[in-house]
Amino acid sequence: MADVDEMPVAGNGLLNRRLFLQAGAAGTAALLTAQASAQDQPIWMRAPGAGMSESGTPSKYESELYRRAIASQPGTTGAGVSRTPLEHLDGIITPSRLHFERHHSGIPDIDPDRHRLIIHGLVERPLSFSMDALARYPTVSRIQFLECSGNSGGMLAAEPAQSSCAELHGLVSASEWGGIPLSALLAETGVKANARWIVASGADAAKMSRSVPIDKIMDDAIVALYQNGEPLRPSNGYPMRLFLPGWEGNMSVKWLHTIKVVDQPAMTKDETAKYSDLQDNGELQLFTFPMGVKSVITSPSPGLNLGRAGVYRISGIAWSGAGKIRRVEVSADSGNSWADAALDEHVLPECLTRFRSAWRWNGGPAVILSRAIDEAGNVQPTRAAALQGRAVGTFYHYNGIQAWQVNSDGKVNNVYA
Amino acid sequence: MADVDEMPVAGNGLLNRRLFLQAGAAGTAALLTAQASAQDQPIWMRAPGAGMSESGTPSKYESELYRRAIASQPGTTGAGVSRTPLEHLDGIITPSRLHFERHHSGIPDIDPDRHRLIIHGLVERPLSFSMDALARYPTVSRIQFLECSGNSGGMLAAEPAQSSCAELHGLVSASEWGGIPLSALLAETGVKANARWIVASGADAAKMSRSVPIDKIMDDAIVALYQNGEPLRPSNGYPMRLFLPGWEGNMSVKWLHTIKVVDQPAMTKDETAKYSDLQDNGELQLFTFPMGVKSVITSPSPGLNLGRAGVYRISGIAWSGAGKIRRVEVSADSGNSWADAALDEHVLPECLTRFRSAWRWNGGPAVILSRAIDEAGNVQPTRAAALQGRAVGTFYHYNGIQAWQVNSDGKVNNVYA
Repeated sequence: MADVDEMPVAGNGLLNRRLFLQAGAAGTAALLTAQASAQDQPIWMRAPGAGMSESGTPSKYESELYRRAIASQPGTTGAGVSRTPLEHLDGIITPSRLHFERHHSGIPDIDPDRHRLIIHGLVERPLSFSMDALARYPTVSRIQFLECSGNSGGMLAAEPAQSSCAELHGLVSASEWGGIPLSALLAETGVKANARWIVASGADAAKMSRSVPIDKIMDDAIVALYQNGEPLRPSNGYPMRLFLPGWEGNMSVKWLHTIKVVDQPAMTKDETAKYSDLQDNGELQLFTFPMGVKSVITSPSPGLNLGRAGVYRISGIAWSGAGKIRRVEVSADSGNSWADAALDEHVLPECLTRFRSAWRWNGGPAVILSRAIDEAGNVQPTRAAALQGRAVGTFYHYNGIQAWQVNSDGKVNNVYA
Repeated sequence: MADVDEMPVAGNGLLNRRLFLQAGAAGTAALLTAQASAQDQPIWMRAPGAGMSESGTPSKYESELYRRAIASQPGTTGAGVSRTPLEHLDGIITPSRLHFERHHSGIPDIDPDRHRLIIHGLVERPLSFSMDALARYPTVSRIQFLECSGNSGGMLAAEPAQSSCAELHGLVSASEWGGIPLSALLAETGVKANARWIVASGADAAKMSRSVPIDKIMDDAIVALYQNGEPLRPSNGYPMRLFLPGWEGNMSVKWLHTIKVVDQPAMTKDETAKYSDLQDNGELQLFTFPMGVKSVITSPSPGLNLGRAGVYRISGIAWSGAGKIRRVEVSADSGNSWADAALDEHVLPECLTRFRSAWRWNGGPAVILSRAIDEAGNVQPTRAAALQGRAVGTFYHYNGIQAWQVNSDGKVNNVYA
């Protein structure tokens, strides 16, 4: 009875990605013997439901749809992170209310009528833009990921942290970002011949400040006003943020207030003391801009336990700061053999790409992994390779392969493999 | 000083779509003369902001980000509509909480553990699928529009209704829809040789029932479980709905409960008494499946008034049940001349496509319109053409061109042009 789609394509039960196995799944659907009688019908089929509302909400049965691991540094207000619950999501869009956050001095409550974007420095005409003024400029929108450079830093621990996928990797999200190409505003101010960088600063009390090469600014940087169709939320930079596709998250300065055009990087605290990588030879690696090629299996993952043996859906996300994802490979035998995963229809540049594989779990222990390759040919490294050359205690820009161990009881945990 | 981008490309101030006019916009940005002193800084730049949260919220300054025109029919619970506030959104994604709704007996409160999807009729093996069983099947996700067949019905009024864009056209939204191809589940049940249609029914008290040709089911129908990355919301069919890309919204049956495979359409009340179009010759047009090619300018539109004369962004959405949008044309002189609008980067099949034009408003009265053309060559009709052949009082499946009149005082209103 087995057709081509039921043939294993890699070790320990990985099936052809063209179609999930049907016979294996059939065991879990009940054969229908008789129609339920009317009095067996649940209340929701017999009585009218709730009325209309101005704003929809998630189901009360989906109690996990909240951000994990809200942390604050002692003695501060609003310094911390909240992580996207990756293991409870599917597809590529992150709902705005679940987008990860990393703030250094909380979320400012900015009145848009009093906020200005100021462009000055090596320009012909320093200008101050109100929200009304910005309404006159062209806009674009694109669906792209944003990742904190500290995402997955927990993987640097000597022993594998027994944490959820969100707790380990939930500082990445994807949205449709809409706004004004910064090049259009710089065309308005004019840029002097010796302009090489800009320094972007935010209007919060922490005043995040980052230097960005002007080539990136002219290429695809936007002043983002919209996220997933609606105006930005305060936690993501309302009324405006810089957005730099594919580059480390903190450079996409939230609550964008000033852009100073300069001839060299400003070497701010946010790019020297922080977000730089100390090497084991004592050198400091500065300015790691694009995020590395990366992937993680979101299901199964810790907390999403398997039931009895049989066919399961392996699902995950892959992304790269260097462009589109070309391929994702999945292994169910600790990396001894690999099979291509199916990529979802939307494979977009600098965006999360959803991948899926079919896996017949035999009920025994297994280690599952994913490995992403981007269109530039970059291959996601093993954990060992990702650690190579780093000084002890550094944790930015980690993009190593994640291994999940599936145990005989169906529970899943983090392992270094 | 004028470069090629400043040359009008159609009457009454439509500018080249490649770039919005810079000189015209500059008048609204203030020349920067001195830096603000520290004590002038607003509180949000001087003190820490709000802390972290489990779930983000919109800005309190964005008071319009709610659904409009919540209506209930007298004597019923939850029969009505809520409309997407199109004029306050940008891009193509509709935030899930703002997705339009149309219910006939309210929103059922379904316990997913007690819900089943039953496939029966002309099948080899009638099967009942629990949520757990469905977790074994392949999934896909795609960003696509959903439109109520009654959307824009207000345009059939003899005199132009003085309503907002949302009130007139807000029964269309777009989301990333994720779920299981229904063809995979039908492969599991087997389908008999004489199967031609399916009848899908919902688990709410209204029990919406629609017949769908089996070719569409096998082509691209999914049992949707996810919307914009998260599990469906109750108002959009939790725990599952049928999703039929490009076809009239009510056929994408929410709270999907049974699929009966049949050899002919069931002629349910929902496809004969409703959602059918009486012609002026007395014939009843049944089964209008794909939604027609359509567009609307969302900004400027009623309620979004213009300030002083100058360059403005014209922005809108276009969509077609027949595939991708090929082109959108915009006119600023009542349809006497037209210019191509710029289409945003993501032009996806059966999806909203964002278009934008630059317009130098001279401060006088003007009528602005948009006209969409899809990849099948269908051209959005004028209002007169869209009314041709309809019986009086019918209002489904209207896709005529929308004209907005901009008055000298900057106010915008609905006109028939």
